[in-house]
Amino acid sequence: MRTQVGIIGAGPAGLLLSHLLHLRGISSVVLEKRSRDYVERRVRAGVLEQGTVDTLIAAGVGERLLREGLPHHGIELRYDGERHRIAFEKLVPGRAITVYGQQEVVKDLIAARLEAGGDIRFEVEDVAAHSLADRPYLTFGGERLDCDVIAGCDGFHGVSRPAVPPGVLQTYERDYPFAWLGILAEATPSSDELIYARTERGFALHSMRSPTISRFYLQVPPDTDAADWPDERVWAELRTRLETVPGFTLTTGEIIEKSVTPMRGFVTEPMQYGRLYLAGDAAHIVPPTGAKGLNLAVADVRVLTEALTAFFHDGSTGALDGYSAACLKRVWRAQHFSWWMTTLLHTFDSDDAYGRRLQLSHLDYVTSSEAAATTLAENYVGLPW
Amino acid sequence: MRTQVGIIGAGPAGLLLSHLLHLRGISSVVLEKRSRDYVERRVRAGVLEQGTVDTLIAAGVGERLLREGLPHHGIELRYDGERHRIAFEKLVPGRAITVYGQQEVVKDLIAARLEAGGDIRFEVEDVAAHSLADRPYLTFGGERLDCDVIAGCDGFHGVSRPAVPPGVLQTYERDYPFAWLGILAEATPSSDELIYARTERGFALHSMRSPTISRFYLQVPPDTDAADWPDERVWAELRTRLETVPGFTLTTGEIIEKSVTPMRGFVTEPMQYGRLYLAGDAAHIVPPTGAKGLNLAVADVRVLTEALTAFFHDGSTGALDGYSAACLKRVWRAQHFSWWMTTLLHTFDSDDAYGRRLQLSHLDYVTSSEAAATTLAENYVGLPW
Repeated sequence: MRTQVGIIGAGPAGLLLSHLLHLRGISSVVLEKRSRDYVERRVRAGVLEQGTVDTLIAAGVGERLLREGLPHHGIELRYDGERHRIAFEKLVPGRAITVYGQQEVVKDLIAARLEAGGDIRFEVEDVAAHSLADRPYLTFGGERLDCDVIAGCDGFHGVSRPAVPPGVLQTYERDYPFAWLGILAEATPSSDELIYARTERGFALHSMRSPTISRFYLQVPPDTDAADWPDERVWAELRTRLETVPGFTLTTGEIIEKSVTPMRGFVTEPMQYGRLYLAGDAAHIVPPTGAKGLNLAVADVRVLTEALTAFFHDGSTGALDGYSAACLKRVWRAQHFSWWMTTLLHTFDSDDAYGRRLQLSHLDYVTSSEAAATTLAENYVGLPW
Repeated sequence: MRTQVGIIGAGPAGLLLSHLLHLRGISSVVLEKRSRDYVERRVRAGVLEQGTVDTLIAAGVGERLLREGLPHHGIELRYDGERHRIAFEKLVPGRAITVYGQQEVVKDLIAARLEAGGDIRFEVEDVAAHSLADRPYLTFGGERLDCDVIAGCDGFHGVSRPAVPPGVLQTYERDYPFAWLGILAEATPSSDELIYARTERGFALHSMRSPTISRFYLQVPPDTDAADWPDERVWAELRTRLETVPGFTLTTGEIIEKSVTPMRGFVTEPMQYGRLYLAGDAAHIVPPTGAKGLNLAVADVRVLTEALTAFFHDGSTGALDGYSAACLKRVWRAQHFSWWMTTLLHTFDSDDAYGRRLQLSHLDYVTSSEAAATTLAENYVGLPW
């Protein structure tokens, strides 16, 4: 079996890459160890930058996104008993974010690929990448797939990155001393916009997936077991951290999902080796505070699509050789912004009284200086590609 | 002996307070344990915010400052072999800083006080503050000075703050794991503007005091002895950290002063007790990276002057009672900005490879985003009073 681009992973990165390559007349096969049902239900990010939305629309997979996605023109920072709106329409005119679950993007992309006759293999076993330096091929479930290029889109725990020989990649890592407990609930959102709340008990985020589904996050210790958080405890803690301003009442409902997300920054450099190119979480992880993970994956895939197009259409290797360098500037910008948002809003056990005062002064500055608010806004909606 | 306001310390805070009170018809006596010669030669800060300059001019002590001070409309950030200008004239139009040594401000204020018949006692011994809660008085060298109010302007190591009973003040403190070696040299400045240089060997600052006097700082270990830095070593290290861009050559000359400054953030809350009011370094210290120490002292003195005027002219205590609260917002803004500038530009032993990449990404952002550059500029020239 042969294809031009062998893609490991049917998450948003792998599926979008396969779709964009198809639009350029480049063949690919996507290998995914999970089932279609599993990847379509996997709850992940939900905030799309303007550039991500534009990319999906231009690729012809934005119809439902335009219909069901919720455009947001601001977010709220809540602390010290007050609410402060970061107004995108004023600070970064013409740019906004769209709330639309990652699994919805995945559903749309799978549907588009299958409709176009795309080759996605679900539930394949023992995927492995070989001979990366020159004539790469993939093996899975007893089969062999020869490729010109392999795209590693299989996430942080995937097989792509470990397939690179030792000593080639340098990794950069930052672990945070807390995690997020994510909650999905059948409840009308309690506010039209996202609320980032800093309290002495820790951070809380009010978000949503649709007009009837609320999404919440609570800062929790890193070793938290979701089973230790029965529904009553979740709602009580959310109330304590969010019902801190006059006139705000949390709307509750049935909790349909609970999960614990570690908070980690991670980058591998370079994002390529031989004929293997890493994209999305396979190459870098951000703490979710800045909502950058999915958007970075889309940015990688845009760069990789252009580079592969030049390679297959013109035989030019320049853009492919520069793939990693072209991506890493944006990757590190996102790392810094995600660290910045995380330290702005979370409580750290290591913080002394000085550190807590510094954090509050920082919040006062971000909510009172137009320049400082703009730094948050322009990163949040996404800096230009 | 009796006065309305007993002022401890003849640094910029105490002298300016005495002068401004004089202009309002309020009497004061300034007690200083050092000699006039000593305080007039003490090399300290040299960057005045616009609001500080305006205050000195309005108080009638700006004549020489206007003649000899060097207005600066930008600073340079230098790192990774490149120079980047933060252009105040574009980012914060109409606002600038003025380079004018703190000891020059002190000379001007002493001259103005003495010319107006002001009472400054130099080289007084054993200054102590008593009965702060109601009928305060000062003792020194066997004399007693009864006051309505005492102003503690005697710096971080002064006697004012320790005179407050234990348990009243809460202190907030942050020590940095490095110090600055300050160098004064008879050398034409190597550049028209200040240069903040980040290198893998540590931070360096190129500054000046006049068209013929250069001022430099080097990040050094906290326990550094200036005696371990002979002139040749100083110049070699300055060259290594500053001659990192094409076309830049360091101008050398005779070194006339060397000193080591610890890097520390410190705040006491409240900044008052009974009839004692703390101003300037007696109440708070910032690392010098943001050039905020002297400017904060002037801001405190402005607030205290208004409050004392209301008290002595109208018998109103409201503004005096609110003195600390009125100052602390600006104090914490300066703490945060100084921390921000310090972490942006210094190397930390604790930084891993991830932290160093994050710092470079942060520098790239500050020098490429107008909003981010504006946050630096607006804090550096001084936020509105």
